[in-house]
Amino acid sequence: MSALASRRTPFAVLDLDRLDANIQRMQARVDRLGVGLRPHVKTPKCREVVARQLAAGARGVTVSTLAEARWCFDMGVDDVIYAVGIVPQKLREVLELRRRGCNLRVVLDSIEAAQAVAGAGKEARHRFEVLIEIDVDGHRAGVSPTSPRLVTIAETLQQGGAELAGVLTHGGGSYGVPGLEALAAFAEQERSLCLEAADRLRAAGFPCHIVSVGSTPTAAAARRWDGITEIRAGVYVLQDLVMAGLGVCLLDDIALSVATTVIGHQVEKGWVLVDAGWTALSRDRGTAVQAVDQGYGVVCTEDGEILEDWIVAAVNQEHGIVTRRDRCVVHDLAEVFPYGSRLRILPNHACATADQFDSYLAWRSGAIVEEWRRERGW
Amino acid sequence: MSALASRRTPFAVLDLDRLDANIQRMQARVDRLGVGLRPHVKTPKCREVVARQLAAGARGVTVSTLAEARWCFDMGVDDVIYAVGIVPQKLREVLELRRRGCNLRVVLDSIEAAQAVAGAGKEARHRFEVLIEIDVDGHRAGVSPTSPRLVTIAETLQQGGAELAGVLTHGGGSYGVPGLEALAAFAEQERSLCLEAADRLRAAGFPCHIVSVGSTPTAAAARRWDGITEIRAGVYVLQDLVMAGLGVCLLDDIALSVATTVIGHQVEKGWVLVDAGWTALSRDRGTAVQAVDQGYGVVCTEDGEILEDWIVAAVNQEHGIVTRRDRCVVHDLAEVFPYGSRLRILPNHACATADQFDSYLAWRSGAIVEEWRRERGW
Repeated sequence: MSALASRRTPFAVLDLDRLDANIQRMQARVDRLGVGLRPHVKTPKCREVVARQLAAGARGVTVSTLAEARWCFDMGVDDVIYAVGIVPQKLREVLELRRRGCNLRVVLDSIEAAQAVAGAGKEARHRFEVLIEIDVDGHRAGVSPTSPRLVTIAETLQQGGAELAGVLTHGGGSYGVPGLEALAAFAEQERSLCLEAADRLRAAGFPCHIVSVGSTPTAAAARRWDGITEIRAGVYVLQDLVMAGLGVCLLDDIALSVATTVIGHQVEKGWVLVDAGWTALSRDRGTAVQAVDQGYGVVCTEDGEILEDWIVAAVNQEHGIVTRRDRCVVHDLAEVFPYGSRLRILPNHACATADQFDSYLAWRSGAIVEEWRRERGW
Repeated sequence: MSALASRRTPFAVLDLDRLDANIQRMQARVDRLGVGLRPHVKTPKCREVVARQLAAGARGVTVSTLAEARWCFDMGVDDVIYAVGIVPQKLREVLELRRRGCNLRVVLDSIEAAQAVAGAGKEARHRFEVLIEIDVDGHRAGVSPTSPRLVTIAETLQQGGAELAGVLTHGGGSYGVPGLEALAAFAEQERSLCLEAADRLRAAGFPCHIVSVGSTPTAAAARRWDGITEIRAGVYVLQDLVMAGLGVCLLDDIALSVATTVIGHQVEKGWVLVDAGWTALSRDRGTAVQAVDQGYGVVCTEDGEILEDWIVAAVNQEHGIVTRRDRCVVHDLAEVFPYGSRLRILPNHACATADQFDSYLAWRSGAIVEEWRRERGW
């Protein structure tokens, strides 16, 4: 990693070989199961990465902010789902993007929201396109597939300036389900309940063209997606320690790491102090609830070789404390990790760690290929 | 808060009355105890805030990144301590800033680091100014005040291109010491051990002009600072739930909040879904180890009235889940927190939450005064 030696730490390294392999693997999976892939850009937030996902066969994108919708449209993507429940204050900007030619669809799960969108559409002489969010696992938002509210929402939209484009769910509960067997069963629950909602709407006379499901764990584990039109997944493109802990990827698949420098030691305690704190690694502790708690990240050498016994045990704003996983004290610590030497840290949660940086250093075969800007804000 | 109604949520609100009161209160405290105040800009990362701290009487600034040193120098601050252990790769930029007239001092705690700085100074025909970091509470970096290493480091610096400017400690262990009585005792430990280190260096012939200590909790609680030349503190300027939990401030002193919109409900579960997830609130859970766990933040009305029974219980990337603190289900939830209405969230840790935003909306007497840019990066 000598090509990186002149850069001041901390910085985010994006391994392009792993990135491309992650993109190809997921695309091949969804192709094999005969379903579309609509990547969630909230993980990479990077035009170059999204361009690679689209080039590999992805159809459209999922966004979590209107900022993401804007830069995706600027780069030529006009097929967009904004997958966070819409509120009235955001409809003006949705309308503006739609009028400029971006087929930006919004998501909602209540009659109040349906009235707001239908009313705003009527007033603007516009027909918003809407997906109803379905709750398949009780983890967050959404209407139950058996709720009477489902058809009422569709009717409310229809009567105003909006039309039903379909249903959408996020099987986010999958993050608590380790193992590919269990995840496949969870994916089947996600599939069948979302399809049940679509079928109820169709029976009530609403076409429901889009049946959209997904999360990286269920996308990686599902055996079939019959009746589903598209999968949404985000983390798969970078992968992370949470995904590795679920059995969804290997540590060697993780494309994102944070480069850091050893700034000191507390040898008696077995501590190596590094200049990656929470401003670099984020405060995310996703693996804390898994079988193996990876602290704030797994330590690698500068070249990326995984040092499995070593984790970042604690962080402050600009300091990290690296220790052995078992907290054993190694008396030649300062020789093993010399002052001024460099390490790389694999992240708990790629979305959160990547979000701490304004760019990625795109890295391939021991050299920096390019610096890729990361997008921010709302 | 109607003046904020047209802004898309989430955004960061900075209450200027509270900010100014926090600045005045701390400045009055240090003035009374006859010691200087060198605010840590890592909390606000904002020129307008730092300008107010300096106008109130602060002498110089503390920084946690070279980026902070750069923008502080750009705004005319030439008295700077970079309070994270220096590494050789960063000395070129330190030298450049020093040659431009910024009295940027660096911090280290090892003989290896002293050799690196002394050697780099010699090579550049420059004398770096260095503070030795002292460990007063075992919480992170620093040399023990009784360690033989202390004098060896000073000698190493002296023999090369560097001089000893003084000693510095951060009583970060104070974050685990609730109550002003206990914090006052902790501050006395911080004071006496740092002074012991300075005295040892002076006895060995090193002048040690600066004796720098601090953390917001010890700065707020200390009864005397005899022998100390300056206090460093950061969080006090914004305050947060962690500080309130330590007894260092009241909830009404917290100057930072995050504005968010209600996007939906799961009424049966007692959940209000809002559009502030971890991209807005951060993943910091500083109050998790305190007597009162505040989740991801305490909920206020749009106007800032604290709703003490309500906290953000969980976050995803762009979603927050607000519940009653006792998890009781309120059946008129959708009437109490209507769809599309707004709330504000008080943060666990002001540094971390502020860091999620590129600007603050500076707010006074019900109106936005200005939008203040926040600085980022390293």
